[in-house]
Amino acid sequence: MIEKKGVVAVILTIGDELLIGQTIDTNSAWMATALNHAGIAVRRRVAVGDDWDAIWTALTEEGKSSDIVLITGGLGPTSDDITKPLLCSFFGGEMITDKGALDNVVEIFSKKLNRPLLERNLKQADVPDNCRVIPNKRGTAPGMWFEKEGTIYVSMPGVPHEMKGMMTDDVIPELKKRFDVSPVQHRTLLTAGIGESFLAERLLDFEAALPKGIKLAYLPNYGMVRLRLTAAGAKDVEAMIDHQFEQLKSLVKEHLVIDQDLTLQETVAQMLLTKNKTLAIAESCTGGYISHLFTLLPGSSAYYLGGIVSYSNALKIDLLGVDPAIIEQFGAVSIETVSQMADGIRKKTGADFSIATSGIMGPSGETAQKQIGFVCVAFSSKEHTSTTTFQFRFDRQRNIELTAAHALDFLRKNMG
Amino acid sequence: MIEKKGVVAVILTIGDELLIGQTIDTNSAWMATALNHAGIAVRRRVAVGDDWDAIWTALTEEGKSSDIVLITGGLGPTSDDITKPLLCSFFGGEMITDKGALDNVVEIFSKKLNRPLLERNLKQADVPDNCRVIPNKRGTAPGMWFEKEGTIYVSMPGVPHEMKGMMTDDVIPELKKRFDVSPVQHRTLLTAGIGESFLAERLLDFEAALPKGIKLAYLPNYGMVRLRLTAAGAKDVEAMIDHQFEQLKSLVKEHLVIDQDLTLQETVAQMLLTKNKTLAIAESCTGGYISHLFTLLPGSSAYYLGGIVSYSNALKIDLLGVDPAIIEQFGAVSIETVSQMADGIRKKTGADFSIATSGIMGPSGETAQKQIGFVCVAFSSKEHTSTTTFQFRFDRQRNIELTAAHALDFLRKNMG
Repeated sequence: MIEKKGVVAVILTIGDELLIGQTIDTNSAWMATALNHAGIAVRRRVAVGDDWDAIWTALTEEGKSSDIVLITGGLGPTSDDITKPLLCSFFGGEMITDKGALDNVVEIFSKKLNRPLLERNLKQADVPDNCRVIPNKRGTAPGMWFEKEGTIYVSMPGVPHEMKGMMTDDVIPELKKRFDVSPVQHRTLLTAGIGESFLAERLLDFEAALPKGIKLAYLPNYGMVRLRLTAAGAKDVEAMIDHQFEQLKSLVKEHLVIDQDLTLQETVAQMLLTKNKTLAIAESCTGGYISHLFTLLPGSSAYYLGGIVSYSNALKIDLLGVDPAIIEQFGAVSIETVSQMADGIRKKTGADFSIATSGIMGPSGETAQKQIGFVCVAFSSKEHTSTTTFQFRFDRQRNIELTAAHALDFLRKNMG
Repeated sequence: MIEKKGVVAVILTIGDELLIGQTIDTNSAWMATALNHAGIAVRRRVAVGDDWDAIWTALTEEGKSSDIVLITGGLGPTSDDITKPLLCSFFGGEMITDKGALDNVVEIFSKKLNRPLLERNLKQADVPDNCRVIPNKRGTAPGMWFEKEGTIYVSMPGVPHEMKGMMTDDVIPELKKRFDVSPVQHRTLLTAGIGESFLAERLLDFEAALPKGIKLAYLPNYGMVRLRLTAAGAKDVEAMIDHQFEQLKSLVKEHLVIDQDLTLQETVAQMLLTKNKTLAIAESCTGGYISHLFTLLPGSSAYYLGGIVSYSNALKIDLLGVDPAIIEQFGAVSIETVSQMADGIRKKTGADFSIATSGIMGPSGETAQKQIGFVCVAFSSKEHTSTTTFQFRFDRQRNIELTAAHALDFLRKNMG
């Protein structure tokens, strides 16, 4: 058993789909972020199947060493969901129908879904009589707040936006009221163009001299490394971590992309907005992925005009105006072709800046001269067109992601 | 403690980033799939931070009730990684330098990375003397195979493609040799246009009559429900599950999309290949996401020509040929505009089929007539143009994903 340090939480996710790999658990990461921001450390994350003994054991064991156990999943209307009767039995309650939850089910079915209401939907309003019901504004399954031997247990549906709504509206505010927590402080920066080991060499003395309670972590991703300082505990820790963060920034300054916990696309978006410039993208090998990264950001229409996914050569020629002779002579994956793609999309759309990608993502497509993972990227503005090439050595999905990250970094550097 | 049933494994992931939400754990899902295919059931998944006590406790507790503990993470070259010395101490070994791992580190640095080799990189070749070293063909950190009191512990790096390589080349084949397992059988189908509760009503008798050892699970996702039959144990279970699967298919036949564990885009891709037809896409609100879903699939250039992300109205007019008067009169988010987008992209690219999307994804952009989540989708072929509308009620990302799923389903139905 681990000693408790401060207020600690465990995240417990329930569902067979988690144990056979059919679902990637994104809820846990979201919940961990929300808890950390509230000053509550997550001690462990545990996933178990739709199995009575496994859930019971996990509730018993995790409850012993934690103040809070947050549970998601296992609350749907179908019979593979056993969580609710189990919770009723675990906390020694009786099932009753909750009036508020019942009204909510009826309203959702009559107003939003426009579908007849089944007996099993009504059942979703049944809850153990010894829990506090947490309203679900976004779905039919209510949340449940239990307490037992000094530990709080909160059960929420596994549907991400329903869980997120309950956490934001109810669970986090309630937990903050119950525990006097000083939030955990994080400071994160993003570097590019330097490997994890080299950063570590450079930061050896800095890390050794960090005051007790401040931790440095290296988070490498897509050839870029995020550095994170974390401090918890005392109220005066904020000044301390800010001071260390300034030092850290000066130690990595020539590789610093941004001194915030932003993604590369968010960084580029900020730059475009500040400069009041617009962007268009011509994608071959990335197939719409870079465009998707921008259009996921709210308000992206302020700087992102759109793009062309010129997956076939015919589209490179017909829609982007690439010279067929250039493709013939140098190939579709060449700095010559990608330059014309970038110039073409910029002129077609009237954007201030453009980028273009062309490459061989695998698993097939290799030629004598060009290996899988070979990528050409171009940047174009009214002032200049620049190109660069990369050789990645991964699988298709990772090659696409790496190309996107490096193309965004190339855009960032070129728009200056 | 839970009784062991068959050969059971636990997946243990290590890293502070998992507990503060900075990383979504995709490794566990991949590993769970690989283990299940090999006939090894996953009992639990546990994630702990870079904390000596937490890792030690997890190894002790999970080892007690499992045959296999697969560990990822905590093996990088930087000092926030404490896993290796801990494993050495936990299994009572001494650190030695492994010749093969050392050669691998030197080769990777000299041939692939073209970077000078640091002392801390060489350290990656150090391993406890009581493990079997698992070669890492894709990175510098070797894997380690330990055995203690009848349980196998395998430690692998957290970098996904390195872990996947070791699992495929070494760990899974070795585990199959060690345990006489009959693979778990899964049969999965995808339905569309019917809710989880309605399916459950319809399948009530079927589910009640399922033979012991066969389980039915409902996996709702983006308004579609996947149904999965699972059977484990005896060798004759295959015929039994196939028989039940046929029954299940006939019970849901008018909602059946496909009787395989395929995504909607994989299903559509198969149909296009079979029909020998090509596709092009004009995306406004989905911003390149549908294009990305297709281009992630290997070999997609055989049927996918490309598309236009016409995020701005100017691009809808200039690149797709939408009549400005139509946008003026009906708005960019209208069945009139989206019809012209679909026709436009089909004619521009010469594709056999096309789809187009336009909608309001939020958080802003609502009008008096059109709410956030309102989406128009069009299909176009030489024979006909069809449109449909949806009203989603979620956040931006989920609205984009739902639009993509429903547009793909609309495409599937229209190409017949």
